[in-house]
Amino acid sequence: MTTDIVLTGIKPTGKVHLGNYIAAIKPALQIANNSDCTALYFIADYHALTFIQNRDEINDLSYGIAATWLALGLDLDRVIFYRQSDVPEIFELNWILSCLTSKGLMNRAHAYKAIIDNNQLLGMDTDMGVNMGLFTYPILMTADILLFQSDKVPVGKDQIQHVEIARDIVDAFNWNYGDTFKLPNYIVDENTYVIPGLNGRKMSKSYSNTIPLFESADDLKKLINKIKTDSIPPNQPKDPDTSNVFLLYKEFATPSQVQVLRDRYQEGISWGEAKQELFQVMNNFLEEPRKKYYELMASPETIDSILSEGAKKAKALAAPLLENVKTKIGRYK
Amino acid sequence: MTTDIVLTGIKPTGKVHLGNYIAAIKPALQIANNSDCTALYFIADYHALTFIQNRDEINDLSYGIAATWLALGLDLDRVIFYRQSDVPEIFELNWILSCLTSKGLMNRAHAYKAIIDNNQLLGMDTDMGVNMGLFTYPILMTADILLFQSDKVPVGKDQIQHVEIARDIVDAFNWNYGDTFKLPNYIVDENTYVIPGLNGRKMSKSYSNTIPLFESADDLKKLINKIKTDSIPPNQPKDPDTSNVFLLYKEFATPSQVQVLRDRYQEGISWGEAKQELFQVMNNFLEEPRKKYYELMASPETIDSILSEGAKKAKALAAPLLENVKTKIGRYK
Repeated sequence: MTTDIVLTGIKPTGKVHLGNYIAAIKPALQIANNSDCTALYFIADYHALTFIQNRDEINDLSYGIAATWLALGLDLDRVIFYRQSDVPEIFELNWILSCLTSKGLMNRAHAYKAIIDNNQLLGMDTDMGVNMGLFTYPILMTADILLFQSDKVPVGKDQIQHVEIARDIVDAFNWNYGDTFKLPNYIVDENTYVIPGLNGRKMSKSYSNTIPLFESADDLKKLINKIKTDSIPPNQPKDPDTSNVFLLYKEFATPSQVQVLRDRYQEGISWGEAKQELFQVMNNFLEEPRKKYYELMASPETIDSILSEGAKKAKALAAPLLENVKTKIGRYK
Repeated sequence: MTTDIVLTGIKPTGKVHLGNYIAAIKPALQIANNSDCTALYFIADYHALTFIQNRDEINDLSYGIAATWLALGLDLDRVIFYRQSDVPEIFELNWILSCLTSKGLMNRAHAYKAIIDNNQLLGMDTDMGVNMGLFTYPILMTADILLFQSDKVPVGKDQIQHVEIARDIVDAFNWNYGDTFKLPNYIVDENTYVIPGLNGRKMSKSYSNTIPLFESADDLKKLINKIKTDSIPPNQPKDPDTSNVFLLYKEFATPSQVQVLRDRYQEGISWGEAKQELFQVMNNFLEEPRKKYYELMASPETIDSILSEGAKKAKALAAPLLENVKTKIGRYK
């Protein structure tokens, strides 16, 4: 029996916040811990380079992402955890695939089209501000996926087209050189909901409404107290199912804790008390990871050594595939 | 004193013929043997992949090119001779540079523009037949050049723009990250002339008028006898300076041999005799290389081991530069 290969790229684009944890990290850790699969999770630092061209920023974010996932309990016995920039094989395959990718396919990529539509709207040159990393990124993502013969790629809805592009490139390669790559499949979590930020809008760096994951307990408490609620006074029943505080609480509490809080909403818990409950479960959950996170951030060499160990495993896993591809294209006698 | 680094990529696109030898290989061997420089010559097999997507063809051509240069006396003590596909660092740098390259720069590349102009003329989709390797090739050539901090890149006139693109990318990178790359310079040999093929037109695979370099002596003789001449009969004076036979003779004969043949033209040598003289000097020159060529082609593992030795040297030369680049973009703490 062969197990599925599940691949997830983690883009270091901002300080990790609660929304990232709930929407991406938590489900990915569950996949890794529960499923019968080979999981590959990687820091997509060379992807981030398409839009972060500042040394300190990309450096801090990359180490920060790595420390976050490790602190939250990523099991290194079950997951191959590496940095994209430690695996040059990806970029070699990226070139090979480029030669089999029609330019038309890239012209039609949503992310690129959104930019040129916007440029046209503003009356600017169509390709204004577009760098070639950004334009060719779907090929790099294809190389990320194919180098490890990934079966499943969990993605957000906005990334579905990229996996479809990967499938198109597989078809083009296999058609020309014979059966070589497996077709990867995307997995979209249909159960995801919008995680509310402090002001009730979707939690997002762009809206400056996030709760960073590893704030000190004091700062976490202050942020939780800023969560927007309605103005129903204490002692009047409140609807837990429309409450952002309750929504977040469910992510960290046990089922029985959730039931208790649900009852207290009906009994007219005050927003202050509800927020205090949320703080308790969150802080309880985050206390240990937060400590680990800061330990790791103070010891980048530990992070480097973990990631470089992961890169070694990733390279070993990729080697036979790359050799097969190079044989197909005519590299070897 | 630092010596210049001279870099030349050799595209395996067709069986090597006399025109290639005279226009490209001979001057490159002279540079390597005479100049005070570090010469890097490489088989651009991953470049050829943009238009040769057939296993056997690319394989035969790559080994053929390598065997040709080695047979013609490439001095491995003076030249780092490697296969592009053995140095994945090139493709990693290619990605990094992609992120610093504006798409507009690629839109304006001559080779790409020639294709889309032609597509438009034919009323076809603009990007018809354009693959992304072809579109992004100038970035790969930039990576080829910059990875080794090349000072000089000997090119044909059609390749000047590619070195200019490399300079633009250097400027973009250095502007953003501080002084990192040297500006490369192109060298165009102004003394080149059009090497005539069998029918008098430029010798080129596309015109099917070539003299392959390593034909057997018999076949070489037959091909030389096919060289088009005028119809001045024997015993009448002939102009050596408008004679294609004489032009080719000069490439292989010693100065005193050239003078002797010049006199015989004036004395009315027959075309048959002139061709016999050409055959003699060419065959004399090619006899040994031809033997070596077929020995090497019968022993691909010898070629592999020579090129892999070269790749090792190339990688060692590239390592500090790549580490510096990765430091600048934020890879290391």
